[in-house]
Amino acid sequence: MELKEERIVALLHGKDRAGIVARVSGWIYARGGNILHADQHRDRQEGIFFQRLEWIPAGDVSEEMRLFAEFAEKDLEMQATLSRSSHRPKIAVMVSKFEHCFGDMLLRCRSGEINCDISLVISNHEDLRGLSEMFGLPYHCIPVSKENKPEAEAKELDLIGKSGAELVVMARYMQILSPYFLDNCPAPVINIHHSFLPAFAGANPYNRAYERGVKLIGATAHYATKDLDEGPIIVQKVATVSHRDNVDDLKRKGRELERESLAQAVRLHIESRILTYKNKTVIFD
Amino acid sequence: MELKEERIVALLHGKDRAGIVARVSGWIYARGGNILHADQHRDRQEGIFFQRLEWIPAGDVSEEMRLFAEFAEKDLEMQATLSRSSHRPKIAVMVSKFEHCFGDMLLRCRSGEINCDISLVISNHEDLRGLSEMFGLPYHCIPVSKENKPEAEAKELDLIGKSGAELVVMARYMQILSPYFLDNCPAPVINIHHSFLPAFAGANPYNRAYERGVKLIGATAHYATKDLDEGPIIVQKVATVSHRDNVDDLKRKGRELERESLAQAVRLHIESRILTYKNKTVIFD
Amino acid sequence: MELKEERIVALLHGKDRAGIVARVSGWIYARGGNILHADQHRDRQEGIFFQRLEWIPAGDVSEEMRLFAEFAEKDLEMQATLSRSSHRPKIAVMVSKFEHCFGDMLLRCRSGEINCDISLVISNHEDLRGLSEMFGLPYHCIPVSKENKPEAEAKELDLIGKSGAELVVMARYMQILSPYFLDNCPAPVINIHHSFLPAFAGANPYNRAYERGVKLIGATAHYATKDLDEGPIIVQKVATVSHRDNVDDLKRKGRELERESLAQAVRLHIESRILTYKNKTVIFD
Amino acid sequence: MELKEERIVALLHGKDRAGIVARVSGWIYARGGNILHADQHRDRQEGIFFQRLEWIPAGDVSEEMRLFAEFAEKDLEMQATLSRSSHRPKIAVMVSKFEHCFGDMLLRCRSGEINCDISLVISNHEDLRGLSEMFGLPYHCIPVSKENKPEAEAKELDLIGKSGAELVVMARYMQILSPYFLDNCPAPVINIHHSFLPAFAGANPYNRAYERGVKLIGATAHYATKDLDEGPIIVQKVATVSHRDNVDDLKRKGRELERESLAQAVRLHIESRILTYKNKTVIFD
Repeated sequence: MELKEERIVALLHGKDRAGIVARVSGWIYARGGNILHADQHRDRQEGIFFQRLEWIPAGDVSEEMRLFAEFAEKDLEMQATLSRSSHRPKIAVMVSKFEHCFGDMLLRCRSGEINCDISLVISNHEDLRGLSEMFGLPYHCIPVSKENKPEAEAKELDLIGKSGAELVVMARYMQILSPYFLDNCPAPVINIHHSFLPAFAGANPYNRAYERGVKLIGATAHYATKDLDEGPIIVQKVATVSHRDNVDDLKRKGRELERESLAQAVRLHIESRILTYKNKTVIFD
Repeated sequence: MELKEERIVALLHGKDRAGIVARVSGWIYARGGNILHADQHRDRQEGIFFQRLEWIPAGDVSEEMRLFAEFAEKDLEMQATLSRSSHRPKIAVMVSKFEHCFGDMLLRCRSGEINCDISLVISNHEDLRGLSEMFGLPYHCIPVSKENKPEAEAKELDLIGKSGAELVVMARYMQILSPYFLDNCPAPVINIHHSFLPAFAGANPYNRAYERGVKLIGATAHYATKDLDEGPIIVQKVATVSHRDNVDDLKRKGRELERESLAQAVRLHIESRILTYKNKTVIFD
Repeated sequence: MELKEERIVALLHGKDRAGIVARVSGWIYARGGNILHADQHRDRQEGIFFQRLEWIPAGDVSEEMRLFAEFAEKDLEMQATLSRSSHRPKIAVMVSKFEHCFGDMLLRCRSGEINCDISLVISNHEDLRGLSEMFGLPYHCIPVSKENKPEAEAKELDLIGKSGAELVVMARYMQILSPYFLDNCPAPVINIHHSFLPAFAGANPYNRAYERGVKLIGATAHYATKDLDEGPIIVQKVATVSHRDNVDDLKRKGRELERESLAQAVRLHIESRILTYKNKTVIFD
Repeated sequence: MELKEERIVALLHGKDRAGIVARVSGWIYARGGNILHADQHRDRQEGIFFQRLEWIPAGDVSEEMRLFAEFAEKDLEMQATLSRSSHRPKIAVMVSKFEHCFGDMLLRCRSGEINCDISLVISNHEDLRGLSEMFGLPYHCIPVSKENKPEAEAKELDLIGKSGAELVVMARYMQILSPYFLDNCPAPVINIHHSFLPAFAGANPYNRAYERGVKLIGATAHYATKDLDEGPIIVQKVATVSHRDNVDDLKRKGRELERESLAQAVRLHIESRILTYKNKTVIFD
């Protein structure tokens, strides 16, 4: 379903109040807009209203976006994030040595399955330079040690800032980003990590999951936030394992989950399908 | 596939050594036995061999069982657990107020889907007496408080001992069994509990999972063991959730997972499909 | 979240038009109603609008229902189905010899997990009378043969009509209902059957699936409709199988899927979460 | 777990007989071999025995392989397929215009996740030449029409034959291979296609699945065989869908399933984990 006409996507959230859906759709219809999708959610405990709207405006797209933002903020007292369907955002990808998530992101961005352009790749190792360059991408190797971490992060932030990236994807980047980095990063950061039932903090989690004899392994894609050890969860996936699976099988299944979860999380973000609040997400998929 | 002839099921485990499969199957064939199923596993890290065998013996069943046990222990230096297909074990079920797991167990045992008889029901509440009596089962209400816990557990152990139960099923029994109970219980104990990614210890886990915005909820059926806060895992299941699910939806999906996981774990145990070692399980399903 | 106040649930559908959401929520708010849930869907290809609303009215419940129905039909030109939360509908259950789905329905209706009362059980066999009577339900055995089918169905329809059942659940009832029956049945009919990839029509599908070496088996719960060999699909579930599973394992896994799928489909129907159109369903879960 | 020592993998099958496991493991142990994995299966209905063995031989690998093959065929009267862990087979990939499966195969073969080399790419279109050449692979575009099909297939067979490919992977190659092709292809062929419950033969299956309102979509990876419309099934996967998913969502989810199913099927084949018989598979995973 290729749509030629440009669409506006709005993500709205704020204090829930009577008649909000009526007012929003009324505003769009009154200006001749054609609503394609409208999904809303109310957190009744918190009294917050969330909405994702996708519509074809009758008038000039930029002008309609400006007016809608004004309407949302002034009349509705809601926060609004707006984007237009023709916009193809840039992203920065951070990697270390594992290539499974990175390769998958390269292909999906290249094919347009995820509608964004990778503008730069940052790594603390040289290992993935070859793959990155096959896809014609600038690869910045910035080794990180205990000693140089502040300078390394400053360089990373500088590169990200200059690139115009609207999202940073940690595709198995094996360094912990400091609170300083997360505070100063000009774009949201999506991270992927394994997850187990029960949880295994620390080193070699697959070995420990194997020793514990778990029957499920998982992966979690989430926003990285400085105030919490783990930010809002976007996607979680699991796979069944049995005593027949050795540690290598667990790792292989884990890679599959990481690949799928990260790709899905990035796509949802790029398509403006995620709203975050109180350390969690509303996902309009 | 109704099999008229009686079968022997053996669970074997011990130090792995060359030619063990050959010796076991050789022994059975030499005595005219017909092997129906043979599944084995090696933990190469630990050097342990595991096998489940199901066969129709040519000779007298009891005699063949005795001889095989002797062969396994003396010749193979392996531990062997033997059962015969005509044996329908008794189990004890412990419940509190939730009926979803209990009702499901009642039906599955009654229909023979799980090949055992519930010989008694123990509860710390009166709530499920009616349901229990509909199925013609003796229901023992033993209230438990901080003060009377030792006496209450002694009574429970006495009832379980006299019942001849070969397995105790905690079908959402909401008391923690003491190390004394687990040490003195004449039968293994299977328990079921919810599980989340990340884990939420303490009260109201579904509320906390909701607040955290998890995308998966789970249930884990495991053996209860005194030395560990959580014994060998038998079954784990998960269900996806979204922001559309409120706390009640999470609980409803959780009940479904608990029901299925507990039923599957009990069936696997009753069919002699589980071997435990080093706080984990090998499951020949 | 036990709600004391009575709620109204409305299912609306009809020709999509501008501002419909605004008008519906506006109407409820104007009359002091408090909307708890509102989920909507548009089939853009067909130009149809669907909505499920759940609200606490300010005024008299019956009067508000009457007025809303009038508003929906006259002002909106939409079809509306209304129910109130205090209403606990009656259902009729049809069974043959398999008890897994039936037993599960008995427990879920008894516990209130599915908010309905089984008012009668109809079977073409005597096998499940005992189970039915344990739960205190009237059991009508109406044998069906090629010769007596019209009379048998007439009796069934008569019993269903007199029972006041608002839903008929075929819990593995192994007779095909005639077009006459489906035309004259005063309540919708939900059926459950196995499903495979690829499909195996005819006798012994599990044997044929085993012979074909499928890696998945499934179950489908759907409305039975006379004009089509299979009506609108409500729930589909699958389980993985391997060469390790024999025909009995396939059947056991199939029973599990049938149980879950049927229970979920009946719950969704009873909670007024299903709208059907053009031989398919919109499900507000 | 990187193993330096070379391993032999044997796939055995033939008429089941008493003591076969004992004889096979006995043979290996007698020659000083160290069995790493041994998985077996019996189809009791058909009286066929299957085994996958992986071991480190004490002697010269080639000689041990020759002797084992002789032992299997002469002494056991079984068919044996043998491979060595250091062997990295070549494969041919056939594509049309869709890139999701192809790109995924490119990455997995490049990274060694699937232990094979793509020796050539054949397509009936030019679309994927760029991607293929990024990975340094020879790309042969052979357009196919009704008229030239025999010559086109002859060219394809010639290229495959000369390439030394041991497997042909149809990564969404949208032409039906003729019986002649399948008869004369020097290597087995793995294909991937969508699958639905119920099945939708013919054009635009996703549109028809959408119209039918299915709640699940699936993909099946299988061997292509000339005598049957669909050969032995290797992998089947499904994803849930709802009324919220439009045709494009179904297609996107379908791509995900195709990608994963095909990658898994090819890996299983390359690791010698699949035995086929009577149009089905035994998979030692």
